[in-house]
Amino acid sequence: MKPVKVGLLGLGTVGTGVVRIVEGNQEDLSSQVGSPILIGKVAVKNIDKLRNIEIDPSKLTEDPWEVIRDPEIDVIVEVMGGIEQTKEYILEALNLGKHIVTANKDLMALHGSEILAKAQEKQCDVFYEASVAGGIPIIRTLIEGFSSDRIIKIMGIVNGTTNYILTKMSQEGASYEDVLKEAQELGYAESDPTGDVEGLDAARKMAILGTLGFRTNVDLSDVSVKGISSVTKDDITYAKNLGYEMKLIGIADRQDEYITISVQPTMIKQSHPIASVNGVFNAVVVHGESVGETMFYGAGAGELPTATSIVADLIAVIKNLKLGVNGLKAIVPYKTKKLQSDEQIFYKNFILLHVDDKAGVLARITQIFAEYDVSLASVVQQPNEHNPDAEIIIITHKASKANMDKVLKHFEQLDVIQRIKSVYRVEDI
Amino acid sequence: MKPVKVGLLGLGTVGTGVVRIVEGNQEDLSSQVGSPILIGKVAVKNIDKLRNIEIDPSKLTEDPWEVIRDPEIDVIVEVMGGIEQTKEYILEALNLGKHIVTANKDLMALHGSEILAKAQEKQCDVFYEASVAGGIPIIRTLIEGFSSDRIIKIMGIVNGTTNYILTKMSQEGASYEDVLKEAQELGYAESDPTGDVEGLDAARKMAILGTLGFRTNVDLSDVSVKGISSVTKDDITYAKNLGYEMKLIGIADRQDEYITISVQPTMIKQSHPIASVNGVFNAVVVHGESVGETMFYGAGAGELPTATSIVADLIAVIKNLKLGVNGLKAIVPYKTKKLQSDEQIFYKNFILLHVDDKAGVLARITQIFAEYDVSLASVVQQPNEHNPDAEIIIITHKASKANMDKVLKHFEQLDVIQRIKSVYRVEDI
Repeated sequence: MKPVKVGLLGLGTVGTGVVRIVEGNQEDLSSQVGSPILIGKVAVKNIDKLRNIEIDPSKLTEDPWEVIRDPEIDVIVEVMGGIEQTKEYILEALNLGKHIVTANKDLMALHGSEILAKAQEKQCDVFYEASVAGGIPIIRTLIEGFSSDRIIKIMGIVNGTTNYILTKMSQEGASYEDVLKEAQELGYAESDPTGDVEGLDAARKMAILGTLGFRTNVDLSDVSVKGISSVTKDDITYAKNLGYEMKLIGIADRQDEYITISVQPTMIKQSHPIASVNGVFNAVVVHGESVGETMFYGAGAGELPTATSIVADLIAVIKNLKLGVNGLKAIVPYKTKKLQSDEQIFYKNFILLHVDDKAGVLARITQIFAEYDVSLASVVQQPNEHNPDAEIIIITHKASKANMDKVLKHFEQLDVIQRIKSVYRVEDI
Repeated sequence: MKPVKVGLLGLGTVGTGVVRIVEGNQEDLSSQVGSPILIGKVAVKNIDKLRNIEIDPSKLTEDPWEVIRDPEIDVIVEVMGGIEQTKEYILEALNLGKHIVTANKDLMALHGSEILAKAQEKQCDVFYEASVAGGIPIIRTLIEGFSSDRIIKIMGIVNGTTNYILTKMSQEGASYEDVLKEAQELGYAESDPTGDVEGLDAARKMAILGTLGFRTNVDLSDVSVKGISSVTKDDITYAKNLGYEMKLIGIADRQDEYITISVQPTMIKQSHPIASVNGVFNAVVVHGESVGETMFYGAGAGELPTATSIVADLIAVIKNLKLGVNGLKAIVPYKTKKLQSDEQIFYKNFILLHVDDKAGVLARITQIFAEYDVSLASVVQQPNEHNPDAEIIIITHKASKANMDKVLKHFEQLDVIQRIKSVYRVEDI
């Protein structure tokens, strides 16, 4: 049977994994698609670089266009990263009728709708399972597994770097700075960790999940983002004492036809399985009207887990190719986007205040919550270990973001409050 | 656009859920498949029964053949249960070129290979996502999400009744008998609970998962089964004190080309997310050579969760129908089955012995382990609260099942051992 030829853009960690799986599992793969799968051509940055995988040098090129324009290549696997230039490559590949498998969350979060529209026009497949949560088949699950349901909420630990940092801080009582340094030495965090620790990477993935879950085009700018760089080891201790773990959680939430998407450090009830998702692992909780609560857990990154998703997409493309049905099952978001206002967004809050240690302060503070219609689940005042002030630890019931913002603004002007030490979203799920 | 007509066999809990979702989510569903989906005819046991769903009485029949032979019906959804008679219905429907969606794990575990062969012959789809772990799309995940990988191990909590019982016993320190009675009153356990509590239901699901994961035909008789009826509240307390939760776990394991499948009460490390899977929830851990460890969690049963999977399958059938590609993506197991011998099956064990409280007993016992090459991770001897004997609590390192069986046989003949109180598999995952 004539082999299917695949062009590879990029031969870094994930690209190497793709070659390993396609070559190592060739027998299993070809018995599923009915013909051999060959890596035909590979675009790399530097053709002379030493690699920890054997590959026929005649297949390597430093010119991506050579891969894209090779008439023998049917499918392009894009694992080079990058946004604008890469978009050009992919649009041109689609123009030439080639199918795309990509791991590029940045590209899909920013230009997904344009790329998917072009794919539909050209009746080509564009699959991107590996772009969110590495080895977890969450995109397939949202598109196919829950095609019958209406999603209410998606909650995800979708960034391994921050989950590694928060896990270490929680398990070892270490500071953010120390753990970040260690993560950088281990290669779990980049030398400039901003994209991970400030939540942008998670926000891009949540834009993709929100688009699929709610069947409407969620833009990156629709996602409100707060990272973990201000989380202290004390915050984590408070969380644990109250029965919570601190996690960087992406939340996509729908009430009727109004949606909201955010990423922020969140206190998660310890009894829920997602609170036990530690280290570089990822997990996504999907709550559907009919199916109820589900969770999907696995490696969020890494050579082979990510390549597993890419090659699974590749098999899907090749099966469609053999059946002549590429591009015909694409889901194009068909709903008009309506975003929740701050008055419509409701959740519980944890608030830690440093206040003057004198009579009447607690009463004044609880009164302000009442003024803005925020009701309280618990309030504890205790002496502060580190200085002469008192600490007040508050957990609210679900309150609107608008009202909570007003409370916090009022607090800033209140002279008995020395400092609003911490504010976190709380999820009891 | 001409509607697609669906025939329903059965209108119990799950069948009612199917009607609710197909009618309630019609707009979302039809926008995905490009035409309305109609429930055309429904076979029920008693046409006059009062139902908590409105359905046009002219669609009801007491004769399943009327549904199967209706020329206007393209897809049969089978939610009536049963094995031999139901198999006849399904084979005849396939003969007539109709596609099948079924939730029937008993049927698929016992006759899946025959049904799938007939489907392939007739180029029909047979989808059965709902047959294992209700709302969790685990079958789709094994077939498509991990098509690129080679599965090493599948571990599942796939029976909600037993998980409910063990959870209650663990959380409330209640006895097996009391919790079973409560579960029966709540409708979580049947009046004859044997199929659930003795592990047969879980075994059938594991046969299905093993077949898909290892791409070889696993028969029900290949699954070794032990239920939970002999688990005591003391056992659960011991497990907790050692950092474990007791769960009824199905395990499908592969070493090279040799597989083994079993269901038994198992002590699971508390720190792993699967240990937090409580109540009637299900979860399946899948370990792949490339993807590493993943877990899928959700409702294992219930009207709407199960119906979610059925209607997702229905959408997949209808999409294939529109593209003219039904039956062409079927995965037929292609590997020769090789079962592990007891010498090849390795795992850790928990053993609780009641022994004579005198010098030398512990030495004698540890010596017997050594004789059969079973090495020990920990041994604790303590006075028995309830009588004058001593208790010995042993955790072994991984040992072959064959050797462990020899140790236990030897113990039975040893007069210083009053009783082998409990033996459980231990999984540290």
